[in-house]
Amino acid sequence: MRLTLLGRTESMANFRVALKALSVAELVGNGRGCYRRLASISLRSFASYVCPSSRAIIYEEHGPPDKVTRLVELPVCDLKENEVCVKMLAAPINPSDINRIEGVYPVRPPLPAVGGYEGVGEVKALGSGAKYLSIGDWVIPSPPSFGTWQTCIVKEENAWCKVPKDVPAEYAATVSVNPSTALRMLEDFVSLKAGDVVVQNGATSMVGQCVIQLSYLRGIQTINIIRDRPDLDDVKQRLKEMGAGKVFSESELEVKNVKSLLGDLSEPILGFNCVGGNAASLVLKFLRQGGTMVTYGGMSKKPITVSTSSFIFKDLHLRGYWMQNWVNSHTSNEFKTMTDYLLRLVRDGLLKYKTETVPFQDFDAALQKALGKQGHFSKQVLMFDK
Amino acid sequence: MRLTLLGRTESMANFRVALKALSVAELVGNGRGCYRRLASISLRSFASYVCPSSRAIIYEEHGPPDKVTRLVELPVCDLKENEVCVKMLAAPINPSDINRIEGVYPVRPPLPAVGGYEGVGEVKALGSGAKYLSIGDWVIPSPPSFGTWQTCIVKEENAWCKVPKDVPAEYAATVSVNPSTALRMLEDFVSLKAGDVVVQNGATSMVGQCVIQLSYLRGIQTINIIRDRPDLDDVKQRLKEMGAGKVFSESELEVKNVKSLLGDLSEPILGFNCVGGNAASLVLKFLRQGGTMVTYGGMSKKPITVSTSSFIFKDLHLRGYWMQNWVNSHTSNEFKTMTDYLLRLVRDGLLKYKTETVPFQDFDAALQKALGKQGHFSKQVLMFDK
Repeated sequence: MRLTLLGRTESMANFRVALKALSVAELVGNGRGCYRRLASISLRSFASYVCPSSRAIIYEEHGPPDKVTRLVELPVCDLKENEVCVKMLAAPINPSDINRIEGVYPVRPPLPAVGGYEGVGEVKALGSGAKYLSIGDWVIPSPPSFGTWQTCIVKEENAWCKVPKDVPAEYAATVSVNPSTALRMLEDFVSLKAGDVVVQNGATSMVGQCVIQLSYLRGIQTINIIRDRPDLDDVKQRLKEMGAGKVFSESELEVKNVKSLLGDLSEPILGFNCVGGNAASLVLKFLRQGGTMVTYGGMSKKPITVSTSSFIFKDLHLRGYWMQNWVNSHTSNEFKTMTDYLLRLVRDGLLKYKTETVPFQDFDAALQKALGKQGHFSKQVLMFDK
Repeated sequence: MRLTLLGRTESMANFRVALKALSVAELVGNGRGCYRRLASISLRSFASYVCPSSRAIIYEEHGPPDKVTRLVELPVCDLKENEVCVKMLAAPINPSDINRIEGVYPVRPPLPAVGGYEGVGEVKALGSGAKYLSIGDWVIPSPPSFGTWQTCIVKEENAWCKVPKDVPAEYAATVSVNPSTALRMLEDFVSLKAGDVVVQNGATSMVGQCVIQLSYLRGIQTINIIRDRPDLDDVKQRLKEMGAGKVFSESELEVKNVKSLLGDLSEPILGFNCVGGNAASLVLKFLRQGGTMVTYGGMSKKPITVSTSSFIFKDLHLRGYWMQNWVNSHTSNEFKTMTDYLLRLVRDGLLKYKTETVPFQDFDAALQKALGKQGHFSKQVLMFDK
């Protein structure tokens, strides 16, 4: 990544650089309106509040994220009546963020764009028409939307959802994609009851960890499939401490009949797949007659292969889940109810997941880890200066 | 097939042979009770009606159908109070019949067994307790059940469903598996309305032909995918005369975007797959966002391969259909309502499909055709002497 630190607009010496930033700023936005408006400087004298400039990770073209992203400083701007100014506290780097930058995600912001899709911030200023939020509130984009990898965001008040402040910022920053996906997949496909069993691959992922814990709270047992790895026993132990019923590496499932490994568990009625290839086939093998497999990721980049008899005689149902679809078809109140529930579990110590917090200025290093170029790491969460 | 024509029991010269047949007969049955009972001879003098002996295609072990099936003569037997004696008129050779004999079908009768699963017969005699049927009625097994490849069947009255006599016997004989599958797949997965579009592969199969006609009657358009073949234009013409909207060979669909071939049709909401492999992928490519593909066969013996993004971003639903499951979960009245409806369409000339009728004594030749060893033929339907 080329790091382009642009000067503040008030510095005459950096005027040209600032102009360059401004021309980027003019274009940077999402479908819900630009974050920074070109007119901001000329109008500044009339505004009641001027939001500070914002340091942002932007990309002007699609490509490898470590090639096409760069840090810029977006200029100050004034606050409109219905807007709030939010200073970001934390924002994760999700696989979908990377896919958006690569240009392979089906929903992409117009270019140039600020990276990031979810995160949490603190309200620093309110437009005169703001009704619901107060200075100091913690808020997350509702629905999740583009441009969270920046220090300061100006957006309409109704684009934000207030969240409790009694959880670590890295949890509030990550609640709306992965834990929400885990919850929805447990609730929206099959009517589960205590004693039922679900099976999943990619169980160490953030969604996987949430599936284990949310299932455990419901009395639902989980069968967890993970990659073979050197620290297999440690990882198994960690997942079991979260409430995992059984944990198998893929090679441990190279048996004639995986169901012989069920022990006292019943055959799973629901399965989750975020890997594809063999790991998806293993989920299907565990499922019981009439069971459902929900695909929500494809980490192996391999397709899902299913026998004809799995459909006809085993009556398997194959579905997919995409958080964006849920968000598009539900109200902001429903979104708030869900995130409030999940963050309450976090506060009560009932929902934990591993993240690695990284200072925003170390974005480059965090991105390298998120890209998997240095092995496997926990979810990278950018932390902004307080 | 070894042809073993066993003598009638009353022929003293054939006494040993008859005994051999009897020992087979003792074992030949299905879960609903034996067709022929060992005790039949000793009790004959007390019975009010003695059913004639029956020539039957049986198999005593699983294996290649042309190796393990043989013709035997099952002995006469008396009619119990609640039974009826049905002289068979017609019975098809379905792929599932072949799979049962091969031993690869998940539901198989105990061995030895009489082949065949559906068919139509005429009531020849009634037990004293029979309430609903009359001599001369046409009946089909309800639900479809084992042992229709024989000249005469004795079974409880409630194992039969009366059907109208104003249709050709080969239609009554085949209504309960293939046309029923087509109807159920159109009715039970997606709520279709006039103007909707469905896509299917294997469109020349009996189910495929029924899908075309039943859709046409509902104002639903069909996109039909067929194998490449020398007589492509003739087959296309024939399917279009049945009501097919569009017909493509697989190679005609080797284009970048199959949806460019939709013309004025909307994207299909429902697809049917009885082939697997590439032909299944073509159905998936045609489907619209949120569409459903139902697999009911796997003629290519290749699995179904689906990309992760088809599930997540296109929200495709993959399901399976098996007539046996429907039968197990519905009443005999529901079964009768369905078959009555389909046979009314046949009578009115609104539902036609190609079959090849073959005298029962030419079973060997019909089996060879059904096994596909001599190229592709229409559905083989065994016709019994009147």
